[in-house]
Amino acid sequence: MSHIEKAQQILLENNLDGLFISSPLQIGYVTNFFGISPTERESFVLVTKNACYILTSPLYFEDAKKTSPDCIPVELSVDVSWVEAVEQIANKEKLQRIGFEEYNLTVSEYKYLSSKQPNLTPVTIKNLREIKDIAEIEAIKKACQIGDEAFTKILDIIKPGISEKDIAFQLESIIRDNKSLPSFPTIVAFGPHAAVPHHRSSDTILEKNNFVLMDFGVQFENYCSDMTRTIYVGHISDSEKKLYYTVKDAQQKAFEYVQSTNNPNAQQADKIARDYIVSQGYPQFPHSLGHGIGLEVHEAPSLSPYSKDVLKPGMVFSIEPGIYIPNNTGVRIEDLVAISSSPTLLTLSSRDLIIL
Amino acid sequence: MSHIEKAQQILLENNLDGLFISSPLQIGYVTNFFGISPTERESFVLVTKNACYILTSPLYFEDAKKTSPDCIPVELSVDVSWVEAVEQIANKEKLQRIGFEEYNLTVSEYKYLSSKQPNLTPVTIKNLREIKDIAEIEAIKKACQIGDEAFTKILDIIKPGISEKDIAFQLESIIRDNKSLPSFPTIVAFGPHAAVPHHRSSDTILEKNNFVLMDFGVQFENYCSDMTRTIYVGHISDSEKKLYYTVKDAQQKAFEYVQSTNNPNAQQADKIARDYIVSQGYPQFPHSLGHGIGLEVHEAPSLSPYSKDVLKPGMVFSIEPGIYIPNNTGVRIEDLVAISSSPTLLTLSSRDLIIL
Repeated sequence: MSHIEKAQQILLENNLDGLFISSPLQIGYVTNFFGISPTERESFVLVTKNACYILTSPLYFEDAKKTSPDCIPVELSVDVSWVEAVEQIANKEKLQRIGFEEYNLTVSEYKYLSSKQPNLTPVTIKNLREIKDIAEIEAIKKACQIGDEAFTKILDIIKPGISEKDIAFQLESIIRDNKSLPSFPTIVAFGPHAAVPHHRSSDTILEKNNFVLMDFGVQFENYCSDMTRTIYVGHISDSEKKLYYTVKDAQQKAFEYVQSTNNPNAQQADKIARDYIVSQGYPQFPHSLGHGIGLEVHEAPSLSPYSKDVLKPGMVFSIEPGIYIPNNTGVRIEDLVAISSSPTLLTLSSRDLIIL
Repeated sequence: MSHIEKAQQILLENNLDGLFISSPLQIGYVTNFFGISPTERESFVLVTKNACYILTSPLYFEDAKKTSPDCIPVELSVDVSWVEAVEQIANKEKLQRIGFEEYNLTVSEYKYLSSKQPNLTPVTIKNLREIKDIAEIEAIKKACQIGDEAFTKILDIIKPGISEKDIAFQLESIIRDNKSLPSFPTIVAFGPHAAVPHHRSSDTILEKNNFVLMDFGVQFENYCSDMTRTIYVGHISDSEKKLYYTVKDAQQKAFEYVQSTNNPNAQQADKIARDYIVSQGYPQFPHSLGHGIGLEVHEAPSLSPYSKDVLKPGMVFSIEPGIYIPNNTGVRIEDLVAISSSPTLLTLSSRDLIIL
């Protein structure tokens, strides 16, 4: 099924005549038009039973025509705003009920659109991209491969005296040399900084006898990877070793659960890793066990204590337990798993403790 | 005046008790907490007459405490959602009327927040960052300097046989080697591609006798630059030369107007460049003459045919006329101007025609 057809199926399921899409990455997914900036409104999309329209300014019109031959491009201008373009299509196709993304459309956009389209209906299409096809999984796999290679190479330069920012910069350079981009700003955290799950890489210099946590990702053909490794530099103590292996074992237990059953439960996977860490006397991690990944670094499904998601074939997600001891140290290990014929690791870097 | 005080002034001007800020870069501006991703909701901010609260998850709590010592950090959790945190503050400080950014808050966020805070009032704070202080202008100037240096260096590698993507990659590498980031994906467009104002760099190979348009920017300490140069490779024809110099002269005329008067009119600056290009027999450009720039590449003011903005001391903006001949060729020249004691160019690369 094409991605346009997937969007059209939502029309049927929700008894809608049209689906107005505003999230840039949903637009990219449905139409293949990704534009330049994910933070600006470069286009809107209106999917109907008969067609898929891309509404865009003259700045992006030619690009949209080229990337999205299956869509009807509509050129906006000072005389035709996006709401007027929707109105013209709604009149032509006699659209009554139009769905929209209430978790994306802003209040002022909603006011403007609803002034002309009174029958707007909130509809959740967050899960549209949850089940990946083979080409999508292959793109994520390739992104993971580039990440694995970058991780191997970065080990050569990590030594006392280097800064967090230096390592982050070099990691991103290796990724860029592979004609890819970082999928998010690389996190490098030494020692106590590793206790902050989303630490921002700083000018701090690496001293001996510390963990080095590296959380980074690659974007390949719009698809993202995400991985975390924590290595040690210097002479590791027994308690630090125990901490590391507790995280590793927690991750392994969650992975084994996912592998051991059909339609594993996301909440249960989280619980297994979380409970194991607590059972070993450590605090539980202040984040989910994992998240879906694809065009976005964080997307459906969610592997959290409150998730209702069932993990199904075609899903790709992270498993990333951690232990964080405030102002002291932290360890996280993160891998991506795809459920194809069976759950398979996409990131292949060793999870054994690396000591430099 | 501190940026928190600037936000508090909005309370007074709009007769509000609180200002709820959701745009990540407005949050960064007011609090100095920039977080990791500009596309995710990592924090919200509530400014009151007495204080500035940052509401954030445990993932970012430590970082927010460090970056924003003048703010009160509020840690969110499963038990305290952001709406509940707002409610607690509203009760404690007896807030009635709370302003919010209706062009940023999503419909579902608004529904959730307004279920507990019935007196939400839309308020525009888009112009909060319009007037820059000296430190901000210095950061933009530094970003421009790095861009100028990158432009000089990139000229060495441009020759027939190179691809658009190669040039974009090298430009971004030079920027990164200066410990900065590109402020947006670099646009490189050869020949007919230069007729598309926001062309995405492709694998197209440079052939002789073509314009090469490069539109790129640098992010330095969160502040952005933006510049465009169009050079020629090969033997230039008289008509191509005329086209280039028409753009150059149009830009110069707009710049001279801005320099010649106190409180120049943004619409008039646009009109001067636009009319000159049309008077020379070319089509008018399908975009504004320019845009403000700062933490975002595009922010207030706007230099467009419909702008009501007056250009005042402290504003930083682009002047970027272009001529686009569809399927044939295009030229754009873009520089940044800051109005400090007088309007000054921040980008200093020569605008003379460069032929390689």
